[in-house]
Amino acid sequence: MNDASPQELLEDQPGEIGLVRWQDYVCTEPFTFDSGQSIPGFTLRYETYGRLNATRDNAILVCHALSGDHHCAGVHSIHDSKSGWWNNIIGPGKAIDTNQWFVVCANCLGGCQGSTGPSSPNPKTGKPYNLDFPTITVRDMVRAQKLLLEKELGVQSLYAVIGGSMGGMQVLQFMIDYPDYVRRVIALATTGRQSAQAIAFNEVGRCAITQDPGWNGGSYEQGQGPHVGLAVARMMAHITYLSDKGLEEKFGRSRKSESTDRQFDAEFEVESYLHYQGQSFINRFDANTYLYFTKALDRFDLYGEGGRMEDSFAGVKSKVLTVGFTSDWLYPPQQNRDLAHALMRCGKHVTYAQLDMTLGHDSFLVHAPELYRLVSGFLAE
Amino acid sequence: MNDASPQELLEDQPGEIGLVRWQDYVCTEPFTFDSGQSIPGFTLRYETYGRLNATRDNAILVCHALSGDHHCAGVHSIHDSKSGWWNNIIGPGKAIDTNQWFVVCANCLGGCQGSTGPSSPNPKTGKPYNLDFPTITVRDMVRAQKLLLEKELGVQSLYAVIGGSMGGMQVLQFMIDYPDYVRRVIALATTGRQSAQAIAFNEVGRCAITQDPGWNGGSYEQGQGPHVGLAVARMMAHITYLSDKGLEEKFGRSRKSESTDRQFDAEFEVESYLHYQGQSFINRFDANTYLYFTKALDRFDLYGEGGRMEDSFAGVKSKVLTVGFTSDWLYPPQQNRDLAHALMRCGKHVTYAQLDMTLGHDSFLVHAPELYRLVSGFLAE
Repeated sequence: MNDASPQELLEDQPGEIGLVRWQDYVCTEPFTFDSGQSIPGFTLRYETYGRLNATRDNAILVCHALSGDHHCAGVHSIHDSKSGWWNNIIGPGKAIDTNQWFVVCANCLGGCQGSTGPSSPNPKTGKPYNLDFPTITVRDMVRAQKLLLEKELGVQSLYAVIGGSMGGMQVLQFMIDYPDYVRRVIALATTGRQSAQAIAFNEVGRCAITQDPGWNGGSYEQGQGPHVGLAVARMMAHITYLSDKGLEEKFGRSRKSESTDRQFDAEFEVESYLHYQGQSFINRFDANTYLYFTKALDRFDLYGEGGRMEDSFAGVKSKVLTVGFTSDWLYPPQQNRDLAHALMRCGKHVTYAQLDMTLGHDSFLVHAPELYRLVSGFLAE
Repeated sequence: MNDASPQELLEDQPGEIGLVRWQDYVCTEPFTFDSGQSIPGFTLRYETYGRLNATRDNAILVCHALSGDHHCAGVHSIHDSKSGWWNNIIGPGKAIDTNQWFVVCANCLGGCQGSTGPSSPNPKTGKPYNLDFPTITVRDMVRAQKLLLEKELGVQSLYAVIGGSMGGMQVLQFMIDYPDYVRRVIALATTGRQSAQAIAFNEVGRCAITQDPGWNGGSYEQGQGPHVGLAVARMMAHITYLSDKGLEEKFGRSRKSESTDRQFDAEFEVESYLHYQGQSFINRFDANTYLYFTKALDRFDLYGEGGRMEDSFAGVKSKVLTVGFTSDWLYPPQQNRDLAHALMRCGKHVTYAQLDMTLGHDSFLVHAPELYRLVSGFLAE
């Protein structure tokens, strides 16, 4: 007989963080964006796992991707069927070992999962900012995160910053903007600048949103908005996160077991899967945040006017690991290797690894023992 | 002084077909589709170039892709700024030499450029068929084309059938269904079955269309309809016709010279280009045809229930050339090579060629001297 409560059982389960709770950092100082616009204050919703040690040198910042959030490990309720989005890599005894590290993850500024963004009330009007929210850049995102770390959590330096995709861009921006603040960085499945093709896909998604009558010039009430356009944008983007081979292995040409009389209803399994992705997205994501974040991605460019990443990387002091995934065609391996090569040309301490995985861009999010070993090895190095 | 009229000048220009005129084949017999549904008759709009010789053995059928039409060479007016979509390969002295061959190209059944399709009037009601138009397959398309060739043009056998993409599927279906009718076939940038990823992209496009209020369950007047959804579908599809490298070389991160005050207006050149593609498409294409044709693509499967293309290819008598293009990620080289391998395993006469081009799926449509030599060589062989 085991008379532990369900909660204790969950917490005792080896390797699992168990129940976690988000917190809000409320900054009451004005925040000025790269654009020069400012807001009178902001909130960042965040979670932490593990404990900050006495010497305060064991903090790791995790940066989320476009549609991610602060909840990257553990569960909010014992009834949750899903853990945080990176639960496979964060936890006691896992690659990012919460017995050793104090892990912080915040919903980005501009987001829609608790942090201040376009859907948050504008103190001036009491109504959502919508398009009155300032243009946001990846640099703005990391500046807000640094305030959280310093002002709220008393973290005076980071052991590491890690993230993939848009999270990887934040990682790169962090090591550039705060070279003395971070010792190691791990950038996964990312790029030094958004390619024409990636911009093109983002623009189609933005068109689907802004041409949906529900968008209404960006003015809509919470829970309302361009649901159809946002779902279409997400469905399309989701294809770019996977791979031809991955989709073929998972779905191939399997047909749905039920059929309908309506022409153009989903007929193949892969279609139903995409519909599900689109529908679940509109329940959790704000369309204006999607517009703001994809613009931040498109404008991200470490090559700068001189066309050389070396100029951006000159002041870097962190040790760097960049990782590309063979089947990632959104931010292909070459773009991750280019980061490493530019850092090498500046004489920086950098390692590039390429993992042979079939799941496309999302490879960095899935079960990947090779990635776990790379990350834990690099952190322990 | 040259006192030739502009028309004579155009016709005399070496290598150019010059002025051409479309014609309509009106079939007054009922046509029964693969689905079992039928229509009381149909029209196919077509063009021909060159002359059928006395022995009637020099006819070549050209099959168009999803958004193509019957107008593949020459101009309709001396004021036309653009020639037909395959003018670079068809003409006197060109790879498909109209001095030698009698070239036929018809707008597919189900189309919207003059052939009978969902936007055509239903004789029973006098209103457009819209979704009452029968489901169409690639097999239906080629059956209608064969009627045109035999009944209208008196062509009792084809020297060759050639086409890319959806046109390539028609080529393959033609050689399977009418093995004694066609001597040579050239299938470019195509596949034996639609992949999960290709189905996925098509489904996103269909969603954009069917969720546009203008679609209205498929019922709309000509000139009306889901313009926004169709433009979004086209923009997305257009990305899949190009390539990462091609877009990078053509646009990179170039910004538009003019800028607007409106957030989320096009900022990069590649965005404007896509907008143009979307807008010009809604002026020439019917959304329901787009739905019907993409479904025909998705259901195309020469592997059949046994999962072996050899079963489909057993009766083939034509000599076959299949061509893949290295940067084509919609119908990658491998899928074209697979066609050739399956034909080889059946002991058929087949050649596979792979052309190293950077323009993606659309490589088969652009200026490509290597392709011209392949095609003219294979036809002369």
